[in-house]
Amino acid sequence: MSHNAAQVIEALKPLLGERLVTATAVREHHSRDMSSHAASMPDAVVFPRTEQEVQEIVRACGKYGVPIVPYGAGSSMEGHTIPIHGGICLSTRDMNGIIEIVAEDALAVVQPGVTRKQLNTELRALGLTFPVDPGADATLGGMASTRASGTAAVRYGTMRENVLALRAVTADGEVVKTGSRAKKSSTGYDLTHLFVGSEGTLGVITELTVRLHPVPEQVASAICAFETVEGAIATVQETVQYGIPVGRVEFLDTYSIESTNLYSGMDLKVAPTLFFEFEGTPAWVEEQSTIVAEIAAANGGSNFQWSTDAEERARLWQARHNHYWAIKARRTGCEIYTSDICVPISKLAENIVAGLADIEASPLEGQIIAHAGDGNFHAGYLVDPNDEAELAEAARLADRSAERALASGGTVSGEHGIGIGKLKFLRREHGDAAVEAMKRIKLALDPAGIMNPGKLGQEG
Amino acid sequence: MSHNAAQVIEALKPLLGERLVTATAVREHHSRDMSSHAASMPDAVVFPRTEQEVQEIVRACGKYGVPIVPYGAGSSMEGHTIPIHGGICLSTRDMNGIIEIVAEDALAVVQPGVTRKQLNTELRALGLTFPVDPGADATLGGMASTRASGTAAVRYGTMRENVLALRAVTADGEVVKTGSRAKKSSTGYDLTHLFVGSEGTLGVITELTVRLHPVPEQVASAICAFETVEGAIATVQETVQYGIPVGRVEFLDTYSIESTNLYSGMDLKVAPTLFFEFEGTPAWVEEQSTIVAEIAAANGGSNFQWSTDAEERARLWQARHNHYWAIKARRTGCEIYTSDICVPISKLAENIVAGLADIEASPLEGQIIAHAGDGNFHAGYLVDPNDEAELAEAARLADRSAERALASGGTVSGEHGIGIGKLKFLRREHGDAAVEAMKRIKLALDPAGIMNPGKLGQEG
Repeated sequence: MSHNAAQVIEALKPLLGERLVTATAVREHHSRDMSSHAASMPDAVVFPRTEQEVQEIVRACGKYGVPIVPYGAGSSMEGHTIPIHGGICLSTRDMNGIIEIVAEDALAVVQPGVTRKQLNTELRALGLTFPVDPGADATLGGMASTRASGTAAVRYGTMRENVLALRAVTADGEVVKTGSRAKKSSTGYDLTHLFVGSEGTLGVITELTVRLHPVPEQVASAICAFETVEGAIATVQETVQYGIPVGRVEFLDTYSIESTNLYSGMDLKVAPTLFFEFEGTPAWVEEQSTIVAEIAAANGGSNFQWSTDAEERARLWQARHNHYWAIKARRTGCEIYTSDICVPISKLAENIVAGLADIEASPLEGQIIAHAGDGNFHAGYLVDPNDEAELAEAARLADRSAERALASGGTVSGEHGIGIGKLKFLRREHGDAAVEAMKRIKLALDPAGIMNPGKLGQEG
Repeated sequence: MSHNAAQVIEALKPLLGERLVTATAVREHHSRDMSSHAASMPDAVVFPRTEQEVQEIVRACGKYGVPIVPYGAGSSMEGHTIPIHGGICLSTRDMNGIIEIVAEDALAVVQPGVTRKQLNTELRALGLTFPVDPGADATLGGMASTRASGTAAVRYGTMRENVLALRAVTADGEVVKTGSRAKKSSTGYDLTHLFVGSEGTLGVITELTVRLHPVPEQVASAICAFETVEGAIATVQETVQYGIPVGRVEFLDTYSIESTNLYSGMDLKVAPTLFFEFEGTPAWVEEQSTIVAEIAAANGGSNFQWSTDAEERARLWQARHNHYWAIKARRTGCEIYTSDICVPISKLAENIVAGLADIEASPLEGQIIAHAGDGNFHAGYLVDPNDEAELAEAARLADRSAERALASGGTVSGEHGIGIGKLKFLRREHGDAAVEAMKRIKLALDPAGIMNPGKLGQEG
């Protein structure tokens, strides 16, 4: 431990007592995330309960020049929360209060450690939902920091569209308040969007005001197998062009369907497949399904089945949500090395087809799923995490995928973020001037570089 | 003219020739906007055609420390484009090319001087539309800079949601490229949203990639008069809560309806009134109208009439769009002093009612209209622009309205922006730390303060 970190720990002990932890097991737990990036231990983990405590912690770190790394649920896929330069890991575990739900305005005010499932449990009785669904039961603070999204973003947008306002403690220990409860505003630089996606490098988010949405009267699920990847993606594209506000639309490749059949005991046709959800009034749901069934049939889709049966829908979407485990079960002890590409929808089919060809030509097994309505897809490669050659091969495939995305006018991360893993692409994607602007903004708000150092705003 | 401005003009003459204008009439035309704020002349007006020319202009201004004020259509309502410190007015008049329309990806790439009507004319044959509609035929560069919205924002969002990517020349003459063509991204600080709403203070926008939307299969209009303001607004609130994706929903007070009847030769019931648009398939439009008619009836709405007749709809919405002229016609030679409040929808009725009571108690005549689904409303006071006492009274009423908005968790500008007129509220709305963060960002990107000086990022 550095001398400075020791001083911060001494300074914070009276404030936090047992909520400042230096035990190895706890530090180890906060040294990694869900990615394959190398772990790195913080010097201590702190568990503040209030914004005032966060201010004290940040001020102490500022005084001694010690890194501070915000930590939510640890479900990052790109190493965001790994304290690569040590320092203080600030866990929002104990900042998990739902401060206010204003049903009439369809908004909730929460502390950053509230998870999306926790919030939705509270909302159930009110007929409201917080729809951003990245899969993991992430914290809202973490989701905001990585600009997370997931399967429902095609309808409801990402954290970009669903954070209305926030409070953050910046490096100087001050509390920046952004946004308001109004649905829109034209007053001042958009600091809300600056903090959303800033990956803990500009401040510690201490409160979020998020948008809620009415639970639809009816939800129907549908599934459809296609002869080709192109036919499946053309169906999605035409559905969006038609203006159908599909609730979810997910693409699974044949390997994924095969794995899902094995793991979830399903009997799906082994072919490129779309999973749909339609939402609305019963009549409108039926009309949407009918229109999309026609579009699918014209694109080589067969056996389009839709159902409003809640159990059937739950079974189908549970299988989709178990996709990760279904793939993992294909090879004992493997990890899944995951990419996160997003391209304009007109380029989605060709990017997926090229990605599948790369997998076909590689010694690794792998598969592709897509949040197809957004043009966002994940290739996942099955690797032995202890085999350097396999990891290198997975990285090579992911890099090729990212290169193709950039050539298509897309982005190297649709929802996972830059973290450590994508830093090397930042300048390629955004260009020198934009990256320099990011660095200037970082320097302006965190001149000493204590907020999650070595990542976005400093590197790339 | 300052010595420095003269040097910039000399330096730019070889580049721009007749597209650098110092004639008084042209400078006067660029000295004001649509607001009542005092005019101020630029030293010269330049009309670049390319991003490279913008770079040269910015570099020349940077070299001699001369202000540069971007100018679109001059339809600002808050004095954004008034060169209060003189300098160079950079008009985007000649940067009016539509660079690319990608129908498959529902996006268009345009130069900043393209107006929304110009773009929509091009889109007509493609079945696509750019829906952000602030009333005036503003340029997309100007609309992005003020984060404009209007009547269709309730359905399609504001410029915040509809600018996907942009290019801007920053104070150092470099071109910052933000965003991509992908629908979403988690890579880096959100510079797109930083420029949207930055009011020309961070750079000159030289290109925008905007989202397009499919033209709905059917559009129906509806109108409904209410016994009370509260009944009208409750109808809007419940419609939104029900999840009806209303295309537009506008509130007009009795004075507005009276004026509309007089000006547009209508025979509307003189009462608080809602104008609706519903969009979708014919069946879905009919269902939406039926549901909203029921909600309206339960809230004291009478005679809910809906129609899919294009002529009827055009007549109704033309009357709405002529609202400004209808009010202006009520008093010879008057100007309309307009406020621009946005509050959470649960507070909308009380804010409007209080605003109407203020008007009732004032010697001035006035009225209120609202983009009700967004909680955004404009009080407009009829003033003699040469009568200081009347202007002061209008300002007093607008300030009271703004104070109430802040107390309601709202914002002092829903869509017009800060400009000159709202600077005094910036700190009140956002707090010291946020305003300081804005100033740091401004200083980081424009250290010499040449980009639209004396406004957002420097003052407030």
